[in-house]
Amino acid sequence: METIPTEHNVTKCLAQFLVDSHWESILPPVRHEARRAILNNIGCALGSCRDDVTGRALGVLDTFSGPREATVIGRSERLDVLSAAYINAVSSNLLDFDDTHLRTVIHPTAPVAPALLAMAERRRVTGAQVLHAFILGVEVECRIGNSISPWHYSHGFHITSTCGVFGSAAATAKLLGLDTRRTAWALGNAATQASGLVESLPAMSKSINIGSAARNGMIAAFLAERDFEAAESAIEGRFGFTHVMGEKPNLAEITKRLGETWELMQNAYKPYPTGVVLHPVIDACLELRSRYSIAPGRIERIEVRGHPLLRERADRPGPNIGREAKLSVHHCCAVAFIHGAAGVRQFTDACVNEPAVLALRGKVALEEDATVPVESAYVSVRMQSGEVYTEHVLHMRGSVARPMSDADLEAKFRDNAEIGASQVEPDRLIDAIWACERSDDVGQLMRMTGSPALVSRAG
Amino acid sequence: METIPTEHNVTKCLAQFLVDSHWESILPPVRHEARRAILNNIGCALGSCRDDVTGRALGVLDTFSGPREATVIGRSERLDVLSAAYINAVSSNLLDFDDTHLRTVIHPTAPVAPALLAMAERRRVTGAQVLHAFILGVEVECRIGNSISPWHYSHGFHITSTCGVFGSAAATAKLLGLDTRRTAWALGNAATQASGLVESLPAMSKSINIGSAARNGMIAAFLAERDFEAAESAIEGRFGFTHVMGEKPNLAEITKRLGETWELMQNAYKPYPTGVVLHPVIDACLELRSRYSIAPGRIERIEVRGHPLLRERADRPGPNIGREAKLSVHHCCAVAFIHGAAGVRQFTDACVNEPAVLALRGKVALEEDATVPVESAYVSVRMQSGEVYTEHVLHMRGSVARPMSDADLEAKFRDNAEIGASQVEPDRLIDAIWACERSDDVGQLMRMTGSPALVSRAG
Repeated sequence: METIPTEHNVTKCLAQFLVDSHWESILPPVRHEARRAILNNIGCALGSCRDDVTGRALGVLDTFSGPREATVIGRSERLDVLSAAYINAVSSNLLDFDDTHLRTVIHPTAPVAPALLAMAERRRVTGAQVLHAFILGVEVECRIGNSISPWHYSHGFHITSTCGVFGSAAATAKLLGLDTRRTAWALGNAATQASGLVESLPAMSKSINIGSAARNGMIAAFLAERDFEAAESAIEGRFGFTHVMGEKPNLAEITKRLGETWELMQNAYKPYPTGVVLHPVIDACLELRSRYSIAPGRIERIEVRGHPLLRERADRPGPNIGREAKLSVHHCCAVAFIHGAAGVRQFTDACVNEPAVLALRGKVALEEDATVPVESAYVSVRMQSGEVYTEHVLHMRGSVARPMSDADLEAKFRDNAEIGASQVEPDRLIDAIWACERSDDVGQLMRMTGSPALVSRAG
Repeated sequence: METIPTEHNVTKCLAQFLVDSHWESILPPVRHEARRAILNNIGCALGSCRDDVTGRALGVLDTFSGPREATVIGRSERLDVLSAAYINAVSSNLLDFDDTHLRTVIHPTAPVAPALLAMAERRRVTGAQVLHAFILGVEVECRIGNSISPWHYSHGFHITSTCGVFGSAAATAKLLGLDTRRTAWALGNAATQASGLVESLPAMSKSINIGSAARNGMIAAFLAERDFEAAESAIEGRFGFTHVMGEKPNLAEITKRLGETWELMQNAYKPYPTGVVLHPVIDACLELRSRYSIAPGRIERIEVRGHPLLRERADRPGPNIGREAKLSVHHCCAVAFIHGAAGVRQFTDACVNEPAVLALRGKVALEEDATVPVESAYVSVRMQSGEVYTEHVLHMRGSVARPMSDADLEAKFRDNAEIGASQVEPDRLIDAIWACERSDDVGQLMRMTGSPALVSRAG
């Protein structure tokens, strides 16, 4: 049997890092990024809390729920902490409106934050504990993802779930205060549960991957807490995660400069719930509309020029349903000019069939230009009057070069809270999330995300 | 993107097969084999019901258990049906004493039967329904295993769990009476949960794989029942299970002659809880002992000749603990002559250190012979008196060529029931299992496997 060097003792090294890390060593910008990620996560969950997919999964887990200690975000039902983490992970990722670690394309927060937030309703923990465990969980999942990217995802493993389970396990282990040996077991117990196929992505079953990553990582840590032993080399061993589910993994990616750099600082947030290639186009249209007060009814033609991927992924002149419209440059331009927005509401089936949208999308022309980067685009609008307005977006909003501001994230949160019809008070919740570093009981914050007034519509 | 032919529509084809299959078309020998498999499964679970591993996993799941509708085999605790299936799957496989589909090395019953037996305590189902769903579940998991063997397991995926989740999903879907569309979703929801690393096999975390396969297959079916849609080509698609977790899968293996042949008929049962390479050696020793009334104290030397794998896997003259002794030809010969048995008791740490065992194992000599098949062995015993007794085992007990008889399985069951200290009455239970085809409520049988008299020792 071939011997693969395990010189890094990766599993043990990660465990040691998790145990040794102290909150005091985490610098303020990293702490703030954690709050931003959690704000965005809870907001996305609010936006999808009444979605059918969330409801169906909730219907099953509700049937088998244990002690109902934890809040389902935006809903009145309560579930055991494992099941609440599952559902909150599902709803926070459902619309692909959550955050992205661009190097791996992991959505880092969805499998990690819901686990910690549910835990906070089972045992009293401070905001600093939750933020710290969250930062570490994201670090572990993204570093493991780095070691097997890009092969792992392009081969067909849904990287957000296969790596997310490590993030949840690492974060839960930290919150439970496990020692190094047990933390290593938590990681090993997570490794052997890593699952998720890319084939599932267009289907509801994608959400199983996300929910399972959150839940199973917690199970991994709870088992480790009871001395349920895992393989010591579960990540780096000959038959461990990186070799079995990766090709030529770069193990040094996992351990180099641990504690000095933070993957969370590479996190990107989406301003629009669409394919990321459309984001600079939408930016340009919204900018034109507002700068020149363009009346959509007087537009003769909209010309879009962008990276070849834009045509490849989004040249879809006649989408029939909201989901297709998320990958239609024609629809995105039309709603940006007509609604002055490209939020969740603009991608409903109803919006796709609005007469004004139908009319304007027919006037969109797409041209590809290999010299334009993916995060850039040119949009020209020719009015019936003959005037032409042009906008060039160099860096799309939400990119690392042009991040969404805190105010942008707040606006997105409010929008999501309204869309989800959760009846939570967004401003109180926003304040609580920004202030959570000083909270001595995160469970209070979580209870504010529930919707006690609503009648249960589970299932 | 490379296009892989999906000419078989494997997922849909399996779903159609599951829905169309009628109990009347299942011939008596297949029905009987299902009873044998379930007898063996429940017996193995009884044998390990008080093991530490079972107890630790139970401790975690007990904390989060929902409605306690289902029996934990051999114990007084009750759990929700998902958690009970998990624990019963764990205990039935824990000692590697369960059954084996030799072509794939899948232990077919552990992920499937516990799911069905737990379900039987939630909704009233007949023995015929359970046996039928079990046969179909095993068929699906083993055929999917055939399509990706031997690469899948040798690459590092724990095939019992990665394929077992399909078995549990298929069987649960059948028991729930799902239609073809929903059955296909159940299979797809299972595919995206397939997990389990070979690295875990020597550790407790192996048991997570088995328990998760049973539980997650049930979740897959329950979600499908609520119209939770999966990818239609979850098994055969470009990014589906067989391509992502297999190499050059042979999809025809999954669908050819469906309903005409039954993988369950290739199932083998273990008479001894040791590595399978040791089985013919143990057979020979037990045969010699009983035929010639050999007094172990008068043995001068034991010579064993077998396939090279025997030396490679089991040349371990000085095992220190029970787990090592399971792969020691020296220990196995010693206990066979001294105890006249090679059961669970012979592989405890205590037995490994018995003075008589220590003395005799030092007299064992091992010789490899490439002309001897794996399922054969030669054993010669030279007595101090100078006499030499020799035995040649052509086919080991438990092989397909020389299957364990029903009486053998009953004896194994009784032995397991005693070892596990579960205080269940084995004979009543054996009778109930043999008669289960005529039962109109399998839940009754399951309640007989519990141990109401015992005080809980969970965790």
